Amino acid sequence: MRNAFLSILLASVASHAPADEGMWLLSKPPVAAIKSAYGVDVAPEWLDRMQKSAVRFSTGGSGSLVSAEGLVMTNHHVGSDMISKLSTPERDFMKNGFLARTRADELKCPDLVLDILWEIEDVTAKVEAAAKGLDPAAAGAARRRVIGELEAASKQATGLKSEVVTLFQGGQYHLYRYRTYTDVRLVFAPEEQAAFFGGDTDNFEFPRFNLDCCFFRIYDQGKPLRPEHHLSWSPAGAAEGQPVFVFGHPGRTRRLFTHDHLRFLRDAEMPLRMQNLWRSEIKAQSFAGRSPENARVVRDDLMGIANSRKASTGLLAGLQDPRLMASKMAAEDALRAKVAADPAMAAKWSDAWGRVATAQQAHKAFLHERQVFDGLVRGSTLLSQAMHVVRLADELKKPDAERLREYKQAGLEQFYFRLYSPEPIHDELEIHALTVQLSRLCEEFGAEHETVAALLAGKSPADRAAELVKACTFKDPAARKALVEGGTPAIKAANDPLLAMAASLDPLLRRLRSQYEDQVESVERSAYAAIAAARFAVDGDAVYPDATFTLRLSYGAIKPVPGEPAFTDLGGMFAKAVERGNEGEFRLPAAWAAAREKLDLKTPFNFVCTADIIGGNSGSPVVNAKGEVVGLIFDGNIHSLVGDVVYDQTKARAVAVDSRGMIEAIDKIYGASELVSELRSKLAR
Amino acid sequence: MRNAFLSILLASVASHAPADEGMWLLSKPPVAAIKSAYGVDVAPEWLDRMQKSAVRFSTGGSGSLVSAEGLVMTNHHVGSDMISKLSTPERDFMKNGFLARTRADELKCPDLVLDILWEIEDVTAKVEAAAKGLDPAAAGAARRRVIGELEAASKQATGLKSEVVTLFQGGQYHLYRYRTYTDVRLVFAPEEQAAFFGGDTDNFEFPRFNLDCCFFRIYDQGKPLRPEHHLSWSPAGAAEGQPVFVFGHPGRTRRLFTHDHLRFLRDAEMPLRMQNLWRSEIKAQSFAGRSPENARVVRDDLMGIANSRKASTGLLAGLQDPRLMASKMAAEDALRAKVAADPAMAAKWSDAWGRVATAQQAHKAFLHERQVFDGLVRGSTLLSQAMHVVRLADELKKPDAERLREYKQAGLEQFYFRLYSPEPIHDELEIHALTVQLSRLCEEFGAEHETVAALLAGKSPADRAAELVKACTFKDPAARKALVEGGTPAIKAANDPLLAMAASLDPLLRRLRSQYEDQVESVERSAYAAIAAARFAVDGDAVYPDATFTLRLSYGAIKPVPGEPAFTDLGGMFAKAVERGNEGEFRLPAAWAAAREKLDLKTPFNFVCTADIIGGNSGSPVVNAKGEVVGLIFDGNIHSLVGDVVYDQTKARAVAVDSRGMIEAIDKIYGASELVSELRSKLAR
Repeated sequence: MRNAFLSILLASVASHAPADEGMWLLSKPPVAAIKSAYGVDVAPEWLDRMQKSAVRFSTGGSGSLVSAEGLVMTNHHVGSDMISKLSTPERDFMKNGFLARTRADELKCPDLVLDILWEIEDVTAKVEAAAKGLDPAAAGAARRRVIGELEAASKQATGLKSEVVTLFQGGQYHLYRYRTYTDVRLVFAPEEQAAFFGGDTDNFEFPRFNLDCCFFRIYDQGKPLRPEHHLSWSPAGAAEGQPVFVFGHPGRTRRLFTHDHLRFLRDAEMPLRMQNLWRSEIKAQSFAGRSPENARVVRDDLMGIANSRKASTGLLAGLQDPRLMASKMAAEDALRAKVAADPAMAAKWSDAWGRVATAQQAHKAFLHERQVFDGLVRGSTLLSQAMHVVRLADELKKPDAERLREYKQAGLEQFYFRLYSPEPIHDELEIHALTVQLSRLCEEFGAEHETVAALLAGKSPADRAAELVKACTFKDPAARKALVEGGTPAIKAANDPLLAMAASLDPLLRRLRSQYEDQVESVERSAYAAIAAARFAVDGDAVYPDATFTLRLSYGAIKPVPGEPAFTDLGGMFAKAVERGNEGEFRLPAAWAAAREKLDLKTPFNFVCTADIIGGNSGSPVVNAKGEVVGLIFDGNIHSLVGDVVYDQTKARAVAVDSRGMIEAIDKIYGASELVSELRSKLAR
Repeated sequence: MRNAFLSILLASVASHAPADEGMWLLSKPPVAAIKSAYGVDVAPEWLDRMQKSAVRFSTGGSGSLVSAEGLVMTNHHVGSDMISKLSTPERDFMKNGFLARTRADELKCPDLVLDILWEIEDVTAKVEAAAKGLDPAAAGAARRRVIGELEAASKQATGLKSEVVTLFQGGQYHLYRYRTYTDVRLVFAPEEQAAFFGGDTDNFEFPRFNLDCCFFRIYDQGKPLRPEHHLSWSPAGAAEGQPVFVFGHPGRTRRLFTHDHLRFLRDAEMPLRMQNLWRSEIKAQSFAGRSPENARVVRDDLMGIANSRKASTGLLAGLQDPRLMASKMAAEDALRAKVAADPAMAAKWSDAWGRVATAQQAHKAFLHERQVFDGLVRGSTLLSQAMHVVRLADELKKPDAERLREYKQAGLEQFYFRLYSPEPIHDELEIHALTVQLSRLCEEFGAEHETVAALLAGKSPADRAAELVKACTFKDPAARKALVEGGTPAIKAANDPLLAMAASLDPLLRRLRSQYEDQVESVERSAYAAIAAARFAVDGDAVYPDATFTLRLSYGAIKPVPGEPAFTDLGGMFAKAVERGNEGEFRLPAAWAAAREKLDLKTPFNFVCTADIIGGNSGSPVVNAKGEVVGLIFDGNIHSLVGDVVYDQTKARAVAVDSRGMIEAIDKIYGASELVSELRSKLAR
């Protein structure tokens, strides 16, 4: 985690979008830059095919259609939420892997939603027209209202999932329409030890040896989807120096944040967040240690926490490097100087940076309270279900335009799909999770804090959590459905203490949400809109917005960090296991040891490329200029962690599984010949 | 960590010192209570023999003389600091264990000090006379001064290490005189996997299977010490129901804290402490993962952090249980009511509880700052050495009475022994430790906080730490000695940035220390003196003071928690390894697997008893009524963790290695026949 990688940042930040930087909108691809850097022509029909082959996972990752029969490729760690939910103590697919030999063996996921982006419409003018002339809080409310109306009208007109995306932190608003699928079935997953070989130690590192892939199949009307487009598999893979393209859904970046906003992130937001991650990770480790079954049920959560912790650690280390902040300041000063030098620009935009700072000042006053209480609800599956049940009873009575965004009619069907998920509820895990959250309240606010004491009802956190989980009446999805359909009377009749807790928390959480929306988000939106306008005016509009978990194109080449290799091979995993004493995270999976003689150990396994990615891109296909799959993004290297706020063109790399290593392993280790045949068939349209 | 164990606390707290409760002063043993509970007469000469066989370890634990040739028994986890420091990448005694076949093979410890308590003198009157009539801050200073004078005079007169101990949080002051030894050599240690089988998961649990022992030998004038007293080994061990006695050095308890003081502990002090433990543990884990050598050098620190974290978690869970706090409140109310009912008592003592609360109020204002900056220095070996070098240059110029306590003449010889330790300095570990502390400053106070920015000197925490460690001039103990002997001119000439950092921190740290001493400690001392006087007046003086890392007698019986066993046997470890898949913390040590056929698997291995212990008691001998060793304390069970503030007579248990299991394993697994012979010889005087 040493910061030598920052030595080159000053250069990178000061210039505009150097080669290979950027998570580009599909509606505004960097055609000229790609042509100039790699001589590749990005044709509209090619882009359209790539767009409609890319898949967004509701578990927070990316994927792609890779066969004419609806086969979807993603990372094991994107699929692991489902793989875990489909497992039981008797059949542990995380530990042992899974392979469906026939369509009939494919396992239906309890609550996975896959989206495929179909259309994009710029609605900036409509959104901003509604907000014009209003003070920040009123403008925010007006924007939320018109966005809801646009989404409802679009859904009504097209039948497609319709979401307005805020770009440039408020500079633009685009309406994205998706085809969505909820009948998704697990086809193949390797054992976790192969998918995540090296564990937390090797996470965000390179060289790597991870078979971080799994495959699902989309079903439509009960039959495998025959998609309009899908990617074909490259027979030859890719070589060092070759250009590659990544189509995926980067989750969030903050590269356009002002210097003051980054200071707030560094000194206020991230430290609080890290404290909670460290705490949660240790508590999850302790819970896991108590029994093999505990370890099984908490495994996926624990991996997620550790992953966030390591990524955030890298980002925070970057923010704590004065050189990074100085480079950000220099870039901001340059833009502001140009704005100040032009009276017309100055009149419109010069106060925008100060308004962002004002929003952070306001945020400081309730950031802590909001993080902790939001964490309480998010940290417990049952309490968050209770909160939805309670809120739905209120929200459904309101006209659509007045509802909280997540309960608007246009999204309700999919919302219910997730709320009524048949995912297993593990009592011990739920008690653990709620104990962790309730004791956190005591630690953060004091055990005698009025709200905290009321929530605990005279019990210790552990006793209260056990009481609440044991008394819970809605662990069965049918019970949740009955409560939602029965509304307030049904909730009253249930006499469930978790529902009562949710009801008692609701006013506080709504107050904190409003405070955030009115004092922070709304102010930021209009201020960042002004900054974006200034940036477009000064630098032109050939810039990419920060990531928003929507489809983007990244590009670059297969290119190692100087002094490191670009590729690893299958043999390297065997060597690494030996080097690390075949212990713990570096234990060689038994299936690999057994198949060693059959494998071509020189087969490329993992590689790095310069494409600009971030969390959410996991599972994105890496394709060549023909659009053929040559790899599967699964990670960034350690130098990429600061990518949340700045792209490091020299040392930041995306890490991918090589298409050849995937085929070799799937074929020879797992004997999944049907899957290999399906991937290799040349039915791409 | 569920709190069912608290269900019986109300009863326990309300009554006075129930059977088996208490960490008793050797100068005031509970002779009548022991006689009444177990029919055992505690004779003064027996007590004297026990006292002079008990050993205090400067690494923070206990031990005992167990042969006529200076052999000392303690826990592996008490000796592990030395075992680690004696290890190298090539000879890793933590991983592989150690056995000296001859005296010549015994390994001299770099910086271990062993103390044997020789005399106790009550100096309360002298200390309080000096403070009489002064305001709290002045009284505190007067007490510190007279304590220094008493210690210096005692050392001068007797040649013994002399320490005044504050008992009852200020109710009494006793002068303890010790024989001390600094030539201590490692004789035997099992491999860590046997000593700490089950790791963090089984830590503070029972049933257990740990060979948590190791043996050192005291040398005096270059020859094995011929002690005046030592413990003999019990040939038969102990049986369920049998009375046992524990002589050891419990580190700290807070059972006499007022209710307000406990609230401060629960809501302010412990949450901050826990946050740092979680953070440190994750960061140490990450460091360990990076390479086997990293794992080796950080192992002992990591175990220590995890142990503190688990103990503190149990304590905090207890404090967060309203029943515990209510029981404490009830006990306090009862005492205060009796004081209030008697005008003479009320006049003297009724305001004492309020004064303790005032001290906590004052503490709140700088607790956070003090914890973080103290942690910065404590967290880095090199920075704490730098701080001592810098302070010695100032302090040695002052008259003895005006010096900070740790630099007074009476203790200087041993202080230098530790400061000039030849312990290995691992650059990578030092850089890690300093990075962890410097980034913590950024997170806690903001990267632009004036002091933080000055300490970082424009660098990132990682870069600054690397720069400081690489430039450090005093990694060699001879260099530290030269700096101390050369004083200010030598320090200036060294031009060492870590010394400069220490010098820049010194005023801040001294200010925080004075604030604590004047506004908190001094106020508490006199208030708690009043509360102790009230308690003696109301309840009589047959009470024990809170633990102070000084010699105490605990007693009880070998008695299981209802529904659990009292003993485990050697065979149980083999069974547990199988149950846990022989993985990770539960992997069977190779030497045990190899020796299985030779072992009597029915040999008792670990047991529980009701003796009242706490951290610091680790390594204490468990003896029978004859004073023979039947066991070796190494842990408390999960119910004992709340023992810091309250003793739970129903379910709290001390956990010990059985003397028979120790002999069986040392003999048949490790083939240490000389050690077994020495332990079994009946030369006890």
